[in-house]
Amino acid sequence: MKIIIAGASGTIGKQVAGSFGPEHEIIRTGSKSGDIHTDISSVESIENLFRQTGPFDALICTAGDAHFGPLTAMTDAQFRIGINSKLMGQVNLVLIGQHFINPRGSFTLTSGVLSRDPVLTGANPSAVNGAIESFVRAAAIELEQGVRINAVSPTVVEDSPGYFPYFPGHMPVTMKQVIYGYHKSVLGGITGQVIRVE
Amino acid sequence: MKIIIAGASGTIGKQVAGSFGPEHEIIRTGSKSGDIHTDISSVESIENLFRQTGPFDALICTAGDAHFGPLTAMTDAQFRIGINSKLMGQVNLVLIGQHFINPRGSFTLTSGVLSRDPVLTGANPSAVNGAIESFVRAAAIELEQGVRINAVSPTVVEDSPGYFPYFPGHMPVTMKQVIYGYHKSVLGGITGQVIRVE
Repeated sequence: MKIIIAGASGTIGKQVAGSFGPEHEIIRTGSKSGDIHTDISSVESIENLFRQTGPFDALICTAGDAHFGPLTAMTDAQFRIGINSKLMGQVNLVLIGQHFINPRGSFTLTSGVLSRDPVLTGANPSAVNGAIESFVRAAAIELEQGVRINAVSPTVVEDSPGYFPYFPGHMPVTMKQVIYGYHKSVLGGITGQVIRVE
Repeated sequence: MKIIIAGASGTIGKQVAGSFGPEHEIIRTGSKSGDIHTDISSVESIENLFRQTGPFDALICTAGDAHFGPLTAMTDAQFRIGINSKLMGQVNLVLIGQHFINPRGSFTLTSGVLSRDPVLTGANPSAVNGAIESFVRAAAIELEQGVRINAVSPTVVEDSPGYFPYFPGHMPVTMKQVIYGYHKSVLGGITGQVIRVE
């Protein structure tokens, strides 16, 4: 399979990319690294990505920023960080990528536990994750030629201790558990599903 | 109670506004009608709204557009109709309104069944509704001075036959059922809840 991984230099993306083994062709993309540089907040940059990759079998996105900060001081501009990056970045990878993906291919997006289990300062990633999960359910019933779409929705991961203070009482999952989520989506047959890793 | 209703001239907003009875002071707002004109897609217009209303006890939003159309032809610009109107409009009513609302006041937003039960051509409202529902859960744990927030999440309503073709097999609810949802949020004590009306 030809698998594009957006966010392939990130904590999760790097491990996911490495996990698919030599039988797959991995195309790594990131804002400042990888085989092709892509700014997922830009439609033009995403179009350019797929023009370079040509047809592909799977796209995994582990990229996208959101804003952590107190709700009481939050602004429209801060809230739009997650909207423009993690939400519209992933949505546009699908809206544009659907015209390049091979029949029976798959999209695997990344949401997160905050859609259902909020933390203080997390209103922006909560909203973004909720949007991604509902988008996946809706897109699954319209994608054509057997193309599938799912979201992996992990809680905080052992390998990201920088996030621990934001997630008190959320027991970190292992990277291995997270990787299994992406494999279930890409290598299995499900569609329209939110794969919870928690 | 002093209750602001955004979208008060809409199918649902009009009935909700009328349902609160003479013991409440209702301030109706809409893009082209009502006591105060407000474009909820504009931060400046929302700030102007609250400067005119001053402190208030409850805000209900039944306003906000989203884009219905086939996923296979959907563009970033079309997807952003729902993002900028129904999602960021409601989010900004809360982000800005939290600085004007009275202690123990409440925000009641409107999402919809498509967050969990998609229909063809509904990927945009699905994502928007999912975002609103997760936002409400997250905002509830940060709002101060006992301020509450909920979302009413109805399926298609009897009074909106124009939507019936988009919702095959979704049994329409009555307007009375929908109004009960808003009353539960405004007059009750719950917070962080998605009030399903289906």
